[in-house]
Amino acid sequence: MSSDILSTLTAKPSPTVMADAVRVLSMEAVHRAKSGHQGMPMGMADVATVLWTKFLKYDPKAPDWADRDRFVLSAGHGSMLIYSLLHLTGFKSVSMDDIKNFRQWGSATPGHPEYGHTAGIECTTGPLGQGLATAVGMAMAERHLNARFGDDLVDHKTWVIAGDGCLMEGVSHEAISLAGRLKLNKLIVLWDDNNVTIDGVATIAETGDQLARFKAAGWAVKAVDGHDHGKIAAALRWATQQSKPVMIACKTKISKGAGPKEGDPHSHGYTLFDSDIELARKAMGWEAESFTVPSPIKKAWEAAARRQARPHKDWDAKLKSHAHAADFKRAMNGELPANAFDALDAHIAQALEIKPADATRSASGAALAQLVPHIDDMVGGSADLTGSNNTFVKGMTAYDTENYGGRYVHYGVREFGMSAAMNGMALHGGVIPYSGTFFVFSDYSRPAIRLGALMGIRTINVLTHDSIGVGEDGPTHQPVEHLASFRAMPNLLVFRPADVVEAAECWKAALKSTTTPSLMVLSRQKVPAARESGDNLSAKGAYEIRSASSEAKVSIFASGTEVSVAIAAQKELEAQGVATRVVSTPCWELFDAQDAAYKASVIGTTPVNVAVEAAVSLGWEKFIGKDGIFVGMTSFGASAPQDVLYKQFGITKEAVVEKALAAL
Amino acid sequence: MSSDILSTLTAKPSPTVMADAVRVLSMEAVHRAKSGHQGMPMGMADVATVLWTKFLKYDPKAPDWADRDRFVLSAGHGSMLIYSLLHLTGFKSVSMDDIKNFRQWGSATPGHPEYGHTAGIECTTGPLGQGLATAVGMAMAERHLNARFGDDLVDHKTWVIAGDGCLMEGVSHEAISLAGRLKLNKLIVLWDDNNVTIDGVATIAETGDQLARFKAAGWAVKAVDGHDHGKIAAALRWATQQSKPVMIACKTKISKGAGPKEGDPHSHGYTLFDSDIELARKAMGWEAESFTVPSPIKKAWEAAARRQARPHKDWDAKLKSHAHAADFKRAMNGELPANAFDALDAHIAQALEIKPADATRSASGAALAQLVPHIDDMVGGSADLTGSNNTFVKGMTAYDTENYGGRYVHYGVREFGMSAAMNGMALHGGVIPYSGTFFVFSDYSRPAIRLGALMGIRTINVLTHDSIGVGEDGPTHQPVEHLASFRAMPNLLVFRPADVVEAAECWKAALKSTTTPSLMVLSRQKVPAARESGDNLSAKGAYEIRSASSEAKVSIFASGTEVSVAIAAQKELEAQGVATRVVSTPCWELFDAQDAAYKASVIGTTPVNVAVEAAVSLGWEKFIGKDGIFVGMTSFGASAPQDVLYKQFGITKEAVVEKALAAL
Repeated sequence: MSSDILSTLTAKPSPTVMADAVRVLSMEAVHRAKSGHQGMPMGMADVATVLWTKFLKYDPKAPDWADRDRFVLSAGHGSMLIYSLLHLTGFKSVSMDDIKNFRQWGSATPGHPEYGHTAGIECTTGPLGQGLATAVGMAMAERHLNARFGDDLVDHKTWVIAGDGCLMEGVSHEAISLAGRLKLNKLIVLWDDNNVTIDGVATIAETGDQLARFKAAGWAVKAVDGHDHGKIAAALRWATQQSKPVMIACKTKISKGAGPKEGDPHSHGYTLFDSDIELARKAMGWEAESFTVPSPIKKAWEAAARRQARPHKDWDAKLKSHAHAADFKRAMNGELPANAFDALDAHIAQALEIKPADATRSASGAALAQLVPHIDDMVGGSADLTGSNNTFVKGMTAYDTENYGGRYVHYGVREFGMSAAMNGMALHGGVIPYSGTFFVFSDYSRPAIRLGALMGIRTINVLTHDSIGVGEDGPTHQPVEHLASFRAMPNLLVFRPADVVEAAECWKAALKSTTTPSLMVLSRQKVPAARESGDNLSAKGAYEIRSASSEAKVSIFASGTEVSVAIAAQKELEAQGVATRVVSTPCWELFDAQDAAYKASVIGTTPVNVAVEAAVSLGWEKFIGKDGIFVGMTSFGASAPQDVLYKQFGITKEAVVEKALAAL
Repeated sequence: MSSDILSTLTAKPSPTVMADAVRVLSMEAVHRAKSGHQGMPMGMADVATVLWTKFLKYDPKAPDWADRDRFVLSAGHGSMLIYSLLHLTGFKSVSMDDIKNFRQWGSATPGHPEYGHTAGIECTTGPLGQGLATAVGMAMAERHLNARFGDDLVDHKTWVIAGDGCLMEGVSHEAISLAGRLKLNKLIVLWDDNNVTIDGVATIAETGDQLARFKAAGWAVKAVDGHDHGKIAAALRWATQQSKPVMIACKTKISKGAGPKEGDPHSHGYTLFDSDIELARKAMGWEAESFTVPSPIKKAWEAAARRQARPHKDWDAKLKSHAHAADFKRAMNGELPANAFDALDAHIAQALEIKPADATRSASGAALAQLVPHIDDMVGGSADLTGSNNTFVKGMTAYDTENYGGRYVHYGVREFGMSAAMNGMALHGGVIPYSGTFFVFSDYSRPAIRLGALMGIRTINVLTHDSIGVGEDGPTHQPVEHLASFRAMPNLLVFRPADVVEAAECWKAALKSTTTPSLMVLSRQKVPAARESGDNLSAKGAYEIRSASSEAKVSIFASGTEVSVAIAAQKELEAQGVATRVVSTPCWELFDAQDAAYKASVIGTTPVNVAVEAAVSLGWEKFIGKDGIFVGMTSFGASAPQDVLYKQFGITKEAVVEKALAAL
């Protein structure tokens, strides 16, 4: 590849030699780990080198600089590309030891890039397509903050490297349609167009015309030789001048530089053996020891990084003199405004007095009405179910090409793309994203919810129509397994409030949970007020909402709309002389985090334990034991008015009473 | 709309009047139910009328005729369209009473069309995009059986009506790319191009060029006035002559015929009140009583259906004389060939003797090698992870444009599209689809797996790399919550075999479960043989795999790769004088289906109960009680070699022994 390596050891290294440094580090790290992927990092090293030395705005000394460009490696398996770049440009987060310890316990270089684990990684990637979809959210947040704070205080690009797999995934469609609709021209996608996937040449599974596809979605598109530094630079310059999002097909050879293995579809993953590595080093003329970057090359990389960091100083000055500097910093730090909850607290106090009956989705809407006007960072939306999700608050305007300052996003029927975009907004900072769809369609956005939980970021998913209470729409629209399925997910708060008070308390807890995404699981149908007193009890996850009149014989556990069923049953049992208590469980995860004494007191020691939830039983045993009574679903639902369904599926006060009495 | 209604009461009704019958039934059923959607059925009534009276091959008297055209209403919320058509054409499954009882308990007309519930419904739809993606699988199965049985015994089209929402969903991208790649020219998609979604005009969320998009994916495309019967017929005729899959944009007005509400974006769902209904009836000149179709109109519909059914007789004759008629009927009935399991049983017997150590994904591959050659109906594939999933069996050829008889599908990186296509193949009949991806990416295909469970069809999802045993790829690739999340889903068999014997037994059980999809959850890493004896024990879901030497003090429950951890711990405990038994739980759902006595015997009554699974604990309480000991995961995983991870996360023999001893 470069025969000028020797001269560069004294002179300024050529761009190709700088790219070779990425290639050699990538290939040797994978070789040492005996796992990972060198194909993409080697193939895209030239494009990445041009980008990171001439275009990307970043500062290795300040990885969190608010107005840096965002760089997302959507093809996350090629993680050695970003680790190499971070190391070469002087990020402290990735030492040569980390590169040597690629994919080992405790290193800064896990198999796929992990946000929060390694400074300079903007987004956890690996599940294909999602980096791209997340980047759309970053670009949305950028335009929003640009509009909100003015003075081009926020004015940066979002760059994505995506592979064939990313573009095959369905979420890429949602992402590019949304970006095209919103004309996010600061978003630039560099597609590693190498025609290779794991099973062989990509055409065994894909023959579509990607440029035409992106163009149809409203993108500016171009193809470029991904190994010609001059042409790459020209293409990137062109990209920065478009009024639409940009996709550049970078024609590359997989494992570029790997001598005889260059271009070999089988060189995607760990497949280069000792002899291959030797041949590759020879082909590149790379003579330095393993895991050593010759000083002139390292210095050239660091000099380039310093050049790219130049705007940082001016920007710091701009922020200093900005009228809303403090608010900007607060928002970027993820802190809530002072008095964020004053209106909400008043609303809760009023609800405790008035005891309104309401659908919990309406209760959530009522809470939002007390939050959105006081927390400017909140940006809402819905996947085309605004009226049903109660996510829109009066006074909001639509986020649109003419109004990026708008705080309400019409995401379209794109649940997965929406959740991924929310992740991107949260990662970008300055925005607290929330959005709505039906609970059953959380299945569509589940992979993005998982990634948010893994990254530890705050997004709030409003999920209405939460059980057979959906009624006539029938089983395709009735979540029965979704509560359990999300309660299984680590670092996720699943809220299912019982009434107006709990809904408001749950919103408060969700907003305060800065490192955990939340689900607000809400009913279509109306329920009576359940809570009579007590301050912020939902924050404990579960609590006794009705005490027994004397030593309790029966405990009834329930969440959401079934708390009212439990309370009705309790009244009936008490009337029949059976001392009964009721525990409301709005958030199992917060309950799990309480101390053992509190948990034991809530679970109690009654001889009979009943759980009521219009969902499957999985997991309820932890409250009621393996011999407890479960009143709920054992199958999918059906299409009929919701009150008929509750009766037909036997989720009623009468069923609870009867089973509790039988057990006594 | 039609002023000629009176004349048609005696003469042959015009096509528009026939379409009006669909419109009136749809709007009145929704009105009566006070829920549902008349907008799409009224808008697409003209297109559907042309299709069902002139093109669709079907026989109301034989809804299961194997070579009928398949018709999929991907925009399932417009269910009254298909119910109206089924009723008008004379399907016995939908009576006028059913239409009156639209969306009521026990009717044949649930809110969204449900496969298996109402004859004539080819696919449960409602979750948008999936009808289209499922239809791709039907079209794939059609071409495959056409090639397999020859003589054009199977030679029919698959028609889809899709809405804006279907085309926004990401799965539509996977579906159309796959169909384009495979040149499925018998697949014809009719897009209800009415520019309306729930939140308003579709352009608030979508401005892409759908025709250009489909063209980029390799489809033939055309736009047509969706209310001009002549032009519709010409377009459909053109569609049947293409060498690629076809998409026709049918320009329609939502709620066509509804007088002043025609074209109103707010007329999508239940929004027509008494006065609107009256105005609509006037606009259409429809004077018949509610829920009455004038006899000439009904007769015209039935005559059309008889015309469309004409090829049925000839086809019956063709089948009768077909050399492989019996095999075809067997396959279409979903029955397995005689002796399907002979080779597998021999393989199991051999494994019980040899006791091979193996990764369970390899064990699954070994089982497949004993099944695929003997069950011609099995069509496999992978979402670009063939080598990792062990789904390919020697001798298979790729399903491709030149070889539709091939039994191995390169699905590309399209997990959701793949699972939906598998649903379509299973619905079509004659094919038993299986395919592979990593277990963690089951999140991507989850909505299709759910729909398969709801429809009660046999698909087999091979899901390898099933825990932190994935190792270096790290937490994005390590499923920890997925077992629980799928165990929560009704009518789904989640298999997690422990070794070669269990893997083979699980495959047998999965193939025998004709009305339930299965997941085969399999390890990347090697495990020792666990089973020593016993016949087909996995079919019971859970069983004692090691007995205690005397009255057991400890029970250890485990699944998959952790059974070997449990067995090692048992040995150690027994060596220390603690009588211990081990229960293997390869399939919780099959265990739940056993009788109470068997279940009690397996769960046992030991004072100490431990569960070991490299996953979260949710649900395990049903085996170990709320005070049981769980050795497993409480967080996401990490990137490191798998043996390091097992130690770091404390899922070891030592941990089990220590905790069991402490509890004693």
